[in-house]
Amino acid sequence: MKPSLINATIPLDQDGVHHGFLQLPHSRDESAWGLMMIPLTVIQNGEGKTALLTGANHGDEYEGPIALQELALTTRVEDVSGRLIIVPAFNYPAFRAAKRTSPIDGGNLNRAFPGSPDGTITQKIADYFQRHLLPLADVAVDFHSGGKSLEFLPFAAAHILDDKALEQQCFAAMEAFNAPHSVQLREIDNAGMYDTAVEEMGKVLVTTELGGGGTSTARSNAIAKRGLHNVLIHFGLLQGKMERQPSTLLTMPDDGSYHFSTGEGLIEPMVDLGEAVATGDVIARIWPVDRTGVTPAECKAKSDGLVIGRHFPGLIGMGDCIAVVGVPSD
Amino acid sequence: MKPSLINATIPLDQDGVHHGFLQLPHSRDESAWGLMMIPLTVIQNGEGKTALLTGANHGDEYEGPIALQELALTTRVEDVSGRLIIVPAFNYPAFRAAKRTSPIDGGNLNRAFPGSPDGTITQKIADYFQRHLLPLADVAVDFHSGGKSLEFLPFAAAHILDDKALEQQCFAAMEAFNAPHSVQLREIDNAGMYDTAVEEMGKVLVTTELGGGGTSTARSNAIAKRGLHNVLIHFGLLQGKMERQPSTLLTMPDDGSYHFSTGEGLIEPMVDLGEAVATGDVIARIWPVDRTGVTPAECKAKSDGLVIGRHFPGLIGMGDCIAVVGVPSD
Amino acid sequence: MKPSLINATIPLDQDGVHHGFLQLPHSRDESAWGLMMIPLTVIQNGEGKTALLTGANHGDEYEGPIALQELALTTRVEDVSGRLIIVPAFNYPAFRAAKRTSPIDGGNLNRAFPGSPDGTITQKIADYFQRHLLPLADVAVDFHSGGKSLEFLPFAAAHILDDKALEQQCFAAMEAFNAPHSVQLREIDNAGMYDTAVEEMGKVLVTTELGGGGTSTARSNAIAKRGLHNVLIHFGLLQGKMERQPSTLLTMPDDGSYHFSTGEGLIEPMVDLGEAVATGDVIARIWPVDRTGVTPAECKAKSDGLVIGRHFPGLIGMGDCIAVVGVPSD
Amino acid sequence: MKPSLINATIPLDQDGVHHGFLQLPHSRDESAWGLMMIPLTVIQNGEGKTALLTGANHGDEYEGPIALQELALTTRVEDVSGRLIIVPAFNYPAFRAAKRTSPIDGGNLNRAFPGSPDGTITQKIADYFQRHLLPLADVAVDFHSGGKSLEFLPFAAAHILDDKALEQQCFAAMEAFNAPHSVQLREIDNAGMYDTAVEEMGKVLVTTELGGGGTSTARSNAIAKRGLHNVLIHFGLLQGKMERQPSTLLTMPDDGSYHFSTGEGLIEPMVDLGEAVATGDVIARIWPVDRTGVTPAECKAKSDGLVIGRHFPGLIGMGDCIAVVGVPSD
Amino acid sequence: MKPSLINATIPLDQDGVHHGFLQLPHSRDESAWGLMMIPLTVIQNGEGKTALLTGANHGDEYEGPIALQELALTTRVEDVSGRLIIVPAFNYPAFRAAKRTSPIDGGNLNRAFPGSPDGTITQKIADYFQRHLLPLADVAVDFHSGGKSLEFLPFAAAHILDDKALEQQCFAAMEAFNAPHSVQLREIDNAGMYDTAVEEMGKVLVTTELGGGGTSTARSNAIAKRGLHNVLIHFGLLQGKMERQPSTLLTMPDDGSYHFSTGEGLIEPMVDLGEAVATGDVIARIWPVDRTGVTPAECKAKSDGLVIGRHFPGLIGMGDCIAVVGVPSD
Amino acid sequence: MKPSLINATIPLDQDGVHHGFLQLPHSRDESAWGLMMIPLTVIQNGEGKTALLTGANHGDEYEGPIALQELALTTRVEDVSGRLIIVPAFNYPAFRAAKRTSPIDGGNLNRAFPGSPDGTITQKIADYFQRHLLPLADVAVDFHSGGKSLEFLPFAAAHILDDKALEQQCFAAMEAFNAPHSVQLREIDNAGMYDTAVEEMGKVLVTTELGGGGTSTARSNAIAKRGLHNVLIHFGLLQGKMERQPSTLLTMPDDGSYHFSTGEGLIEPMVDLGEAVATGDVIARIWPVDRTGVTPAECKAKSDGLVIGRHFPGLIGMGDCIAVVGVPSD
Repeated sequence: MKPSLINATIPLDQDGVHHGFLQLPHSRDESAWGLMMIPLTVIQNGEGKTALLTGANHGDEYEGPIALQELALTTRVEDVSGRLIIVPAFNYPAFRAAKRTSPIDGGNLNRAFPGSPDGTITQKIADYFQRHLLPLADVAVDFHSGGKSLEFLPFAAAHILDDKALEQQCFAAMEAFNAPHSVQLREIDNAGMYDTAVEEMGKVLVTTELGGGGTSTARSNAIAKRGLHNVLIHFGLLQGKMERQPSTLLTMPDDGSYHFSTGEGLIEPMVDLGEAVATGDVIARIWPVDRTGVTPAECKAKSDGLVIGRHFPGLIGMGDCIAVVGVPSD
Repeated sequence: MKPSLINATIPLDQDGVHHGFLQLPHSRDESAWGLMMIPLTVIQNGEGKTALLTGANHGDEYEGPIALQELALTTRVEDVSGRLIIVPAFNYPAFRAAKRTSPIDGGNLNRAFPGSPDGTITQKIADYFQRHLLPLADVAVDFHSGGKSLEFLPFAAAHILDDKALEQQCFAAMEAFNAPHSVQLREIDNAGMYDTAVEEMGKVLVTTELGGGGTSTARSNAIAKRGLHNVLIHFGLLQGKMERQPSTLLTMPDDGSYHFSTGEGLIEPMVDLGEAVATGDVIARIWPVDRTGVTPAECKAKSDGLVIGRHFPGLIGMGDCIAVVGVPSD
Repeated sequence: MKPSLINATIPLDQDGVHHGFLQLPHSRDESAWGLMMIPLTVIQNGEGKTALLTGANHGDEYEGPIALQELALTTRVEDVSGRLIIVPAFNYPAFRAAKRTSPIDGGNLNRAFPGSPDGTITQKIADYFQRHLLPLADVAVDFHSGGKSLEFLPFAAAHILDDKALEQQCFAAMEAFNAPHSVQLREIDNAGMYDTAVEEMGKVLVTTELGGGGTSTARSNAIAKRGLHNVLIHFGLLQGKMERQPSTLLTMPDDGSYHFSTGEGLIEPMVDLGEAVATGDVIARIWPVDRTGVTPAECKAKSDGLVIGRHFPGLIGMGDCIAVVGVPSD
Repeated sequence: MKPSLINATIPLDQDGVHHGFLQLPHSRDESAWGLMMIPLTVIQNGEGKTALLTGANHGDEYEGPIALQELALTTRVEDVSGRLIIVPAFNYPAFRAAKRTSPIDGGNLNRAFPGSPDGTITQKIADYFQRHLLPLADVAVDFHSGGKSLEFLPFAAAHILDDKALEQQCFAAMEAFNAPHSVQLREIDNAGMYDTAVEEMGKVLVTTELGGGGTSTARSNAIAKRGLHNVLIHFGLLQGKMERQPSTLLTMPDDGSYHFSTGEGLIEPMVDLGEAVATGDVIARIWPVDRTGVTPAECKAKSDGLVIGRHFPGLIGMGDCIAVVGVPSD
Repeated sequence: MKPSLINATIPLDQDGVHHGFLQLPHSRDESAWGLMMIPLTVIQNGEGKTALLTGANHGDEYEGPIALQELALTTRVEDVSGRLIIVPAFNYPAFRAAKRTSPIDGGNLNRAFPGSPDGTITQKIADYFQRHLLPLADVAVDFHSGGKSLEFLPFAAAHILDDKALEQQCFAAMEAFNAPHSVQLREIDNAGMYDTAVEEMGKVLVTTELGGGGTSTARSNAIAKRGLHNVLIHFGLLQGKMERQPSTLLTMPDDGSYHFSTGEGLIEPMVDLGEAVATGDVIARIWPVDRTGVTPAECKAKSDGLVIGRHFPGLIGMGDCIAVVGVPSD
Repeated sequence: MKPSLINATIPLDQDGVHHGFLQLPHSRDESAWGLMMIPLTVIQNGEGKTALLTGANHGDEYEGPIALQELALTTRVEDVSGRLIIVPAFNYPAFRAAKRTSPIDGGNLNRAFPGSPDGTITQKIADYFQRHLLPLADVAVDFHSGGKSLEFLPFAAAHILDDKALEQQCFAAMEAFNAPHSVQLREIDNAGMYDTAVEEMGKVLVTTELGGGGTSTARSNAIAKRGLHNVLIHFGLLQGKMERQPSTLLTMPDDGSYHFSTGEGLIEPMVDLGEAVATGDVIARIWPVDRTGVTPAECKAKSDGLVIGRHFPGLIGMGDCIAVVGVPSD
């Protein structure tokens, strides 16, 4: 396979706090010999584990970039044992465009792994992480939220894996993150995900869904920051004492969790995030946008549980996800 | 002045529940002889006052359209004394496009009054309300929220007016609406506003800011529906008993309420909606989007009070409104 | 009023065949000091009437431009008595863009009269015709077809006017045109129309609807060419013998002619252009585009007559004109 | 090869009339966890052959979707012996956008076979038909028309194949379809075509060109519906008697059938669809769009025959197909 | 007339160096309560004249913004006698978009005077300068270059005016600017120009054309900076000694200076900027873009002189300005 | 591998001057059965070498297309010994759009080799040259300039190759071209380049950078024409005497030649093309675009030498190439 055209402007393996960029050639109409420059901070202090910390895998999700900008700015080299590799805006072009996917090639970075060194920009970024950064890491924290089209109850997540030893490490890291809710996920279709790339390399992955709607709040950012510190303390990378708060463990039954719209219109939520629903309850109504006097369509809950995710924009399209119902694990 | 080219497909002055449209010719590339059809419901029962009820004056604000769709569908003629004229999507093209302004002519309907019968589509809509619907009304309720770029604590509002008799009626209607917060507004620049058009005609206006972000919730819709019923009961248009809950009266001092960004970047809110700030507190920080290791800019509160409005998207531009601070009135 | 910035590169009042342009400054991002150049031919031979001949008033209608290009190319000065002013592409930017309206300013030229010398490009063109070309003319022929969104049975038309003497001249010219169908039109809303500008100046106007769909055929072009020659012979501008064919006179009753869609979907015409319908017949059905197994909406004829116009594209939107029903006059 | 992410919401193999969708995940900026839902009807009654019936392979061709919507709505289970799999909008995103190709990925579905389960949306659709639906079928009917840029005399077609036994079945099915014209086609470049996918699997394919211009008519839809019923009766899937009308067999000689434009301009057709031309006849003239007084370019027939296809829009570009000339087979 | 909604964030009439903004409300889809902020520096020291200094009247012209940014940064209050009002980016939205005209409303600021307080953004900027800033000024320097579509020999210019006393002051200021070339201009169409607004108020105006192509060079910026200093010294606003270099006076005869393209294609300049041409010389050739083997069109000089302006992009459109020929004045 | 769908409308191997096209099917929404037609001239006279001559590999570079249009038009068959294959617009869609890359598929032709017969349009063009035209050639001349985003001192270039015999032939051809400057290049990343495709086939390649900014001048075109004639004489393809002028040999040290922007803003060049810089000299300053009173960022030279390339547009983005510094050899 060809070498990656990406290189870092700072050393990845020297003690100290280094701020720089991942650079990749991006020849385009506006800049024939231009570079794309993805912000990068590496903080290393002696031997120890390596954490690879990423935000904005989807470009319209903001808790990760904020928590990681703060970490990169405020962490002193003496706070660390080992190495932090911090990339606040993983899919950088998407982040700059405030979009889920890359405006350059339409790429969903979380479906682009393992990537390719001579593919699209998104594939080149994936390839560099696959072949150059992930091999350096022991643990990866990848921050997600709902983005502009979805909103979630804040939760940390880890995957149910065939490798049960790794699974246990991931669950432990998720618990350390200590978000208000925690979810053990089984992905139906994990092809191309960064998560899968991390786990197949035998590394620990923690991921999150911390809010959504294309915004963040003081509260959601606090969850991200606390979780990040807790995980880094858990792995011995930072010193200090974990802040612990109650966290609810949730599961998502395969069938009945996901509710999709079979029409389009003006969506009226009948239950808010975090509220309980019973099977058959109306979760949302869909009103027509072009006339009055017509009874709205109803979306009814297919299972008992809590609404842990919901459609965010005021209008909804056919096939859009209306709500996700999770079940508290006791 | 020329006659309006808009006409209603249903009678405006006959007893009964009528669902129809405001029709206006809209010749365009895609439809040479096409009409625009704005949904309209008129419910009349005998003599009485007339309420003109509008949502989606800005097309990305959803509590109004939802409350009005429900009112239009569920109100029986015998529930009414007088007349309800219901237009759930006032700037209909903007509503269909999920945008604040019209995708056809860029028009901000709330700056387009008194409009013009031979102007743009937005101006034609304004003109029809100015000359044909408003003269029929005694009271107008116009629903607003923050839209995609702002989010508000839910409040109803009425304007401080030179005509103190009218002002008192407006304040009384605002109180009847009974949102969790109520605001007495003094507009700096009210030129072209629908509000001004209503008030200058000597009619009562109630307006709101009920949420924002381009979404709605079960909770924000409930506030809209309750407020709408309360106001209609207040004016004798509907029978029944008003639902009352505690409401906080807020004022916005001219100076110190509005906080604007003097740079662009990734916004980190340091205080959430509804929380108290003291003068000098950091309301938000603005991180750079293109590099790490740089101290963020800070936006500090210019007055004591509650955060009653905030910038919604995760990125912020120069000159965008970061926050609005209101002062509880005692 | 300011002088027009448009000038002709050829003389308008000298004997001979002159090919040139109407030039107007069009400063824009792509060409700071650029000109727009609208093709123009003037053919003059001594004294006589003046005909002002225009195509592509709407830029996606093609019979006019073709008939006028041929006339400009093939007419010898000795064929003419008087003067022909030929503008094959009246709304030139719209014609180049193959659109009904101008891509520069969105202007519908046929709603832009009397125009303005310092308005948009469309308004400047209207103003130049209003103040400079129309005053030179005795008769104006303005070719129309259905454009991309409509299709018509081929007809020539003249307006029912208050000035009955002028009306008679217009009807006579329409008969001379001798399209397969002829229509006496009463415009509901004639504000801004070129037709109105011509007639208010006391000039004879003949207009047409010769086909549509954004195409032309050998047959529809032949109708345009024959009609054009006939009219010019009728006014003594060209010599020769008119070609006469049977023509049916049609009227459009105010009520019942126009059928608009009250929904959107996949349109299935149930009757073709030129076919007879009786009141209550299904003219078209509208199938949903997003599901199967649903009964289509029906559009039923509101009067007896012939289908003389129809919606062209395969999909239809709310408020689009489905069909126009005309009534043969006996 | 990976499994397809597409699944049907209804059973493909149970007796009865089932209306539903083909669902595929379509994560995008507007809907992070959204589905695309392609309408599908399956009608099965006991044992028998299976017909796979598709419209809108190119999204701007309408006879197929209309005939198939009607078939899906009106066919009773007891009318059928075997199974009908009906997909009125094969390239569904293209159909919704009224475009030949997909607005999502630019894909021409009829060049996308055999597709790929992890490619673009268009490739995913192709793959699902290739691996899941086509193997169930005995006969495929795929409706085409000229779309927005071409117009055809209505014909059914079957391919000249190396497998002469299959060819005979295809010719027989084409004759059963009984369009006004029938064409035995030899594709020059059949790579990626759905037709090729069908035939290489040893299944019978009937395809059509029934009109064009991005519209349909009562007449062209009647041809589609009659042909569809005839073919289904021919294969024993429906009962009843075929409606037969005269049909002309046409051939297209390799050389001389296709006429391409070597310039751009305003096209004037000199011969209409269905009319005869002799070698050297002028089929069309191309006038300049930017000046008058210039002799138009001429396109002359390269062979004797009938004009069976033509360029539709009023303007033409370099390399566009002006006309197709077919030769009646005696 | 309504008050302007624009206000300055810094005082316009206090001694010192003040950096700030002109602020105007710009409610739009992306920022409901947003402001536009146009950078502004005011440097005042006691009594004296006032100079109003503007760059980027057209947003793709760069010498002005660069010279004015440097002046704003480096001028000390003690260097000044009187007042400098510095606006490096006059049409600020156009400047940010690197376009001649505003991306918001398409406005060409230099055709928007006297503007309007409730018009488009461009009109609001013009109105504020017309009513608030120009009345404060004694002299205005407005920097221009060719922008992306034109390139000029560097020259300063002043207008031939009816007010001969003012004309002399303008000519003297132009000479003080001391660009390599100087041009006495007679505008054909000066309606709406900033220049006209300045001159009609009886103020001195100096304008320039210093280069073009959408770029600047060290050399063209040096001309701008030297000219700016010279003019400010000339009016006693700055102290110091003017730098003088030889300057050639040019005139543009009404007829024969401007050469426009009567076709479109690939432009081959045959003479470069600053070179002499004689009447009949080929200034440029226009090659076809779609074929080889065709003789190019030629544009021949209509007068003797120097090429002082030229079309910049490699392709040229109909009506574009190919070249401007000036005549050295002896 | 599949056969190419491209074919030439003229013979490639017959004596004479032939003007025609490379034709490739380009089915698209606007033209279902359309062809793309790339202009081509072949001039052959008996035995001899073959030169493959290409311009507009990047579509916004104009010296090549102009020199090759002239060569194709003016070369008589008797002037030639051997064969010239002339393609003035190699990436034809990019050339028509005045863009570096193809507007159809975003393809950078100079990164698309060896291409693919069933890939995108850009890949199909590359494949046809790779498999059909390059094998016919002995020498290839491929013209480049800076395009819209860069500007260069005019130079011809040849690559430092492992095959030293070929390298010598390339250097000799570069010297024959005799541009004002000559550069021996070592590409860091030559994957996908046309240059690499030529050289790996053992053919001689000469390439150039002759100016830029998206324009050409009489001077830059003269360099292209002279160089082209000299190279053809050098290879015995044309007769005559080479025009020789002094040429400076330049080298680009790996480190220190390329200067990239680490911010965005308004660029002020401090040194012009062709001027000398010493290490540490300020090459350019970057001013903010959104405020005044801020010290600009500086870009300092990393080596001594001449500025041989520079950023062209007036605004600059992060990662854009500010300048290239070359070192005169010996």
